[in-house]
Amino acid sequence: MRLTRYFLPVLKETPSEAKIVSHRLMLRAGMIKQSAAGIYSWLPLGFKVLRKLENIVHEEQQRAGHIPMLMPTLQSADLWKESGRYDAYGPEMLRIRDRHDRDILYGPTNEELITDIFRSYVGSYKDLPKTLYHIQWKFRDEVRPRFGVMRGREFLMKDGYNFDIDREAAMHAYNRHLVTYLRTYERMGLKAIPMRADSGPIGGEDTHEFLVLADTGESEVFYDAAITDLALGDREVDFDSVEQCRDIFDEFTTHYARTDETHDPAVFDAVPQERRRTARGIEVGQIFYFGTKYSEAMNARVQGPDGKPVPVHMGSHGIGVSRLLGAIIEASHDDKGIIWPEGVTPFHVGIVNLKQGDAEADAACEAIYASVTAVGLDALYDDRNERAGGKFARMDLIGLPWRITVGPRGLANGVVELTNRRTGESEELPPEEAVKKLHGIYTGHRTTQHVEMMGKRAFHTYI
Amino acid sequence: MRLTRYFLPVLKETPSEAKIVSHRLMLRAGMIKQSAAGIYSWLPLGFKVLRKLENIVHEEQQRAGHIPMLMPTLQSADLWKESGRYDAYGPEMLRIRDRHDRDILYGPTNEELITDIFRSYVGSYKDLPKTLYHIQWKFRDEVRPRFGVMRGREFLMKDGYNFDIDREAAMHAYNRHLVTYLRTYERMGLKAIPMRADSGPIGGEDTHEFLVLADTGESEVFYDAAITDLALGDREVDFDSVEQCRDIFDEFTTHYARTDETHDPAVFDAVPQERRRTARGIEVGQIFYFGTKYSEAMNARVQGPDGKPVPVHMGSHGIGVSRLLGAIIEASHDDKGIIWPEGVTPFHVGIVNLKQGDAEADAACEAIYASVTAVGLDALYDDRNERAGGKFARMDLIGLPWRITVGPRGLANGVVELTNRRTGESEELPPEEAVKKLHGIYTGHRTTQHVEMMGKRAFHTYI
Repeated sequence: MRLTRYFLPVLKETPSEAKIVSHRLMLRAGMIKQSAAGIYSWLPLGFKVLRKLENIVHEEQQRAGHIPMLMPTLQSADLWKESGRYDAYGPEMLRIRDRHDRDILYGPTNEELITDIFRSYVGSYKDLPKTLYHIQWKFRDEVRPRFGVMRGREFLMKDGYNFDIDREAAMHAYNRHLVTYLRTYERMGLKAIPMRADSGPIGGEDTHEFLVLADTGESEVFYDAAITDLALGDREVDFDSVEQCRDIFDEFTTHYARTDETHDPAVFDAVPQERRRTARGIEVGQIFYFGTKYSEAMNARVQGPDGKPVPVHMGSHGIGVSRLLGAIIEASHDDKGIIWPEGVTPFHVGIVNLKQGDAEADAACEAIYASVTAVGLDALYDDRNERAGGKFARMDLIGLPWRITVGPRGLANGVVELTNRRTGESEELPPEEAVKKLHGIYTGHRTTQHVEMMGKRAFHTYI
Repeated sequence: MRLTRYFLPVLKETPSEAKIVSHRLMLRAGMIKQSAAGIYSWLPLGFKVLRKLENIVHEEQQRAGHIPMLMPTLQSADLWKESGRYDAYGPEMLRIRDRHDRDILYGPTNEELITDIFRSYVGSYKDLPKTLYHIQWKFRDEVRPRFGVMRGREFLMKDGYNFDIDREAAMHAYNRHLVTYLRTYERMGLKAIPMRADSGPIGGEDTHEFLVLADTGESEVFYDAAITDLALGDREVDFDSVEQCRDIFDEFTTHYARTDETHDPAVFDAVPQERRRTARGIEVGQIFYFGTKYSEAMNARVQGPDGKPVPVHMGSHGIGVSRLLGAIIEASHDDKGIIWPEGVTPFHVGIVNLKQGDAEADAACEAIYASVTAVGLDALYDDRNERAGGKFARMDLIGLPWRITVGPRGLANGVVELTNRRTGESEELPPEEAVKKLHGIYTGHRTTQHVEMMGKRAFHTYI
């Protein structure tokens, strides 16, 4: 993308209403614009990252055999009256009356609707297990929306629901989701720690939250430092294997890690003192097993092997997709701006022309832009007629992991400069070498391996 | 995908509420489920097609240099009061009051919001031209929602907006959009005819609707039969070329083609009698040039070359993405069910095992499933222990363009059967030949060429 053709309205001033760094940076980098309290437009740069996150979530869910679908944003109030949550939910639920005076609402979550879909079609244990999920906009009428997309009112969430014959099968679904979430966050460059949590209005006893450590987190967290050494990495996972999923669950949940809601000082004290950590965390996902709470209330039963109807065992699992942008920035930025992890960066590389209008510099930039594109990378080429300082500042602000700088002096020696945003380190090398190196970096990156896999399945719509 | 693992709840009975064939078939094929009047859940098969359509729209818009973003579903009423449309819009607008008693609404379209975004950031003619678009859920509170997704209340729409310095530049944007829409519909296997139309509440004089011919269409249309021979095909288009876009515009709009709103019998009579056609059509898109209607009302001005502020010239352009599913089915089905065009089919091929449980048949199906997947095609393998007749009926109902049938008798001769859904023609050939032939068919298909192009750009998130 050539910057002169893009729509990237960066701000010079920091908007005074933004209290945390991710909100400030998203506004300054031209990623979002508030359209009403807690409701945002996603400008092109923000939307590009949002869509990448959404794609990662889709890929990891489908890898585990979970089935994508899409429920609407608006729901009839009837199902919520059936489950008993219509009155219980309180003023965060946006209640609407349509032109025929029917009660509808903007869905804050979808347990009722998915249970209704399930019970309408599924009648036998033979059709189980099933896990359905969608990624859809939700609305919660927060009394004080704040922190930009971190606590907005309209937000994008992945929510999935498993239907199983008994508790044991449902716990496999629970463990399987924990594994998919670990991989999802790792691909986004996040260290998200599963922590035993409180179930709140969803209900049920078994629940883990995933928290990203960040000073601005809204939750206080307590954990054994040993947990931060764990990584799922590239290991092969057979999602049908009860044992393997349980082993990974055990591996990632045995060390002490709890939020203030479930913190138990007595147990925490058993952790060796040098490994005890207290910090703040941002919640980016949660998984629940709530058994037959909704299936009993809404009569979602299947015929068991003995011919008798039994209520299905369910769980639900959520990832706050739009909130993740804020969490990633909170965890990865510096004084100059955002630093995108390579797996989610909106563009793989920025190209800065130090002397726009100089025939040789222009030609070199065009050639680099073409060859970067030819190897399948996405470049943002700053082709404006502006000073170098302003161009650098903008690239640093929007946080692309790599920058290629092209100027007459370097070209006289046959080189350009390749700079790493995170370390600030630069090296001079011929243009073709710079492109080759970039290609190698992204090919070696785990995200890319997933993309390569998708490449082989080029005809799939991989959602 | 193995059918035993999928969620494909087909219906035996035709729901009585469905009045048109696309609605009946979408319900019977397990693609949608109504959750409230005019509000649908997209079950996995329906969602898969919806997402394919969305991807095609994204690709064709970005090919023309249009920039994707995302505006929220809910909007503040303030901007609509500013443009004067808040009172004018009538009861189709879903008006909502939040917990702080502020007036918000579920966006039926986005002229106001995009104009506000534009005026907040863009101040100079040097930043023009710009075309921004998004694909987002809209709501119109139809008094009588009907025909399934064809006239729902919550619907998915692509809406784009161009900002230009003067009428001439804006007319290039208009022509450019016409070209992108032609290609979009062609890739979906649709013959959509641009027809001079009436602008309605959007305003402006220049507007064309795109209509798909179908007996169930809500509009009466009048056209010169010569127009149905036109096709954009694979021709290379330079979207920056004013001349080329205008030539294509002229090519596709010179022949008489109008809806009943703009029909002029005197002009129609000049068409040679043997080419005059009267038919019914389904509207699947519309483009508008409305000049400075919104930019003047909302003070969206840029500094012109002479330093004086001028209101920008705008147009908007919409494609009814969710409605397209219904239109495609109306245009492509038979007594047995849907017939998906290859460019939008949810799965490329269905595999039917005639004797599930037979070791040889099972092994052959597994091998075919693996090799179809390995060449990048998406197969639906009916691995249920059911009779052949039921399996065939289901494949015919859901409408996959190709089917591979595997049974002990054929395998004894080293062959399987490859069947075309549209023609019903079958041929027997060795399994590896069947896969090779399928691969060739989809590789030769225009959609695939686009995908191939995307394959080369494997690291892009092509939206």
